[in-house]
Amino acid sequence: MTDQRAEFRALHHTGRPLLLPNAWDHASAAALAARGHRAIGTTSLGVAAAAGRPDGTGATAAETLALARRLSRLPVLLSVDVEAGFSADPAAVAEYVAELAGLGVVGINLEDGRADGTLADPEDTADKVAAVKAAVPDLFVNARTDTWWLGVDNPLPQTLARALAYRAAGADGIFVPGTVDLATLRVLTQEIDAPLNALYQPGGPGLGDLGRAGVARVSTGSLLFRAALAAAVAVADGVRASGLAAPDGPAVPAGLPSYAEVQGLVPTDGD
Amino acid sequence: MTDQRAEFRALHHTGRPLLLPNAWDHASAAALAARGHRAIGTTSLGVAAAAGRPDGTGATAAETLALARRLSRLPVLLSVDVEAGFSADPAAVAEYVAELAGLGVVGINLEDGRADGTLADPEDTADKVAAVKAAVPDLFVNARTDTWWLGVDNPLPQTLARALAYRAAGADGIFVPGTVDLATLRVLTQEIDAPLNALYQPGGPGLGDLGRAGVARVSTGSLLFRAALAAAVAVADGVRASGLAAPDGPAVPAGLPSYAEVQGLVPTDGD
Repeated sequence: MTDQRAEFRALHHTGRPLLLPNAWDHASAAALAARGHRAIGTTSLGVAAAAGRPDGTGATAAETLALARRLSRLPVLLSVDVEAGFSADPAAVAEYVAELAGLGVVGINLEDGRADGTLADPEDTADKVAAVKAAVPDLFVNARTDTWWLGVDNPLPQTLARALAYRAAGADGIFVPGTVDLATLRVLTQEIDAPLNALYQPGGPGLGDLGRAGVARVSTGSLLFRAALAAAVAVADGVRASGLAAPDGPAVPAGLPSYAEVQGLVPTDGD
Repeated sequence: MTDQRAEFRALHHTGRPLLLPNAWDHASAAALAARGHRAIGTTSLGVAAAAGRPDGTGATAAETLALARRLSRLPVLLSVDVEAGFSADPAAVAEYVAELAGLGVVGINLEDGRADGTLADPEDTADKVAAVKAAVPDLFVNARTDTWWLGVDNPLPQTLARALAYRAAGADGIFVPGTVDLATLRVLTQEIDAPLNALYQPGGPGLGDLGRAGVARVSTGSLLFRAALAAAVAVADGVRASGLAAPDGPAVPAGLPSYAEVQGLVPTDGD
């Protein structure tokens, strides 16, 4: 196991949740790294929207690989969201993930939700997990089940059954986005014999409460990307109104980086 | 002249400044378009930082072209920041800009600042302007002089001399970033016989005051990109502290778009 993969794995067992903020381009990842985030995920929504492609439809395999190549130069542990692996063929998924692993990626998220809003057969996702683990045994495979995310009826038993199948196939962690109900999370963490990843929700429980419910890892999904987009549009709106409808200019976010600070996020070799 | 180029040109003569907010990827451009911004620029800093490359060094010609191709599908008038044209050869600059124009781009920004912090000879920049105008006569060429931006001594006379040279070469507008002093802008707008573009500065005069000083166009440069980055990092910081150091989660920007709203920014053909 590479040192980086061992370090990433250990971060799921420190007694407090690993926060994995999700980046979508070099600048967002570099800015998060500069703020001391040791491990960073990617957001498939952000990657897709930045490229003008739909999320969750397997349309961003090339963009995701290119992003991983860019981010591999940063001093972070990188886990990549590969949606459902960009293929229905487990061997093709394993080949793709092996290419990511060759760039230094320490983990992936692999999901069972499909673009049409239904769940894949758990066997199909389990086969992908097994193929990936056979190809890159020490890569952290975080298997995501979209039972809550896609709003299935009575999600708990189906979630537990899928988690069991993915664990049996070799998944290292289980990601259940869409619920931050602490009682539910407590059941999940008690019943699932692997680090549980929850998706942070604004207004929901903080890292402390999630950790006390047994959650080992918290990711932000597309939240940072959406916050970035909202801030940009709000500033543009404020400038448009400045000195006309509104007396003052827009409120600019605290901590606005300078031009030089943004340039400083770029590696000096420029490539 | 294409209808779009004529429309863009006319927006510099409405009696109030044209606000040109600057995007760096599909999502930021689409979100600005969705907020009713008819014309959009690009920010070379944002494009470069998103790609993990330095700004202002001619390193992002491919990324800039790819971005223009993506944004050409949006219902906006698009002006592209081409730094110094990504070449010292006027013919190569003209060829590059002609390719942009072929995508439907209505204007460009072309700058005389160089990566080493000095200004190019005005004749060199004028030659590029002339070559571009010869290749695409009705494209709006906004010639940017970095006299203030790079902090030259006694910038006013040199700015006016450069503006004259770029106008003589066919520039349609003059961009003078780095000063929002209204008295200075009034002199510039009186002495320069072309629409003047100012760079909005947070805390500086609003669109109303800039318009009363004669400014025809106001762009936001890298401000929106930097605001986006600041917002993303602030939310990540807030999540990291939630329930631990801080009782509450982060303040999420007003107008946070939903997952579905971000997906809605992507063209349905997905390509």
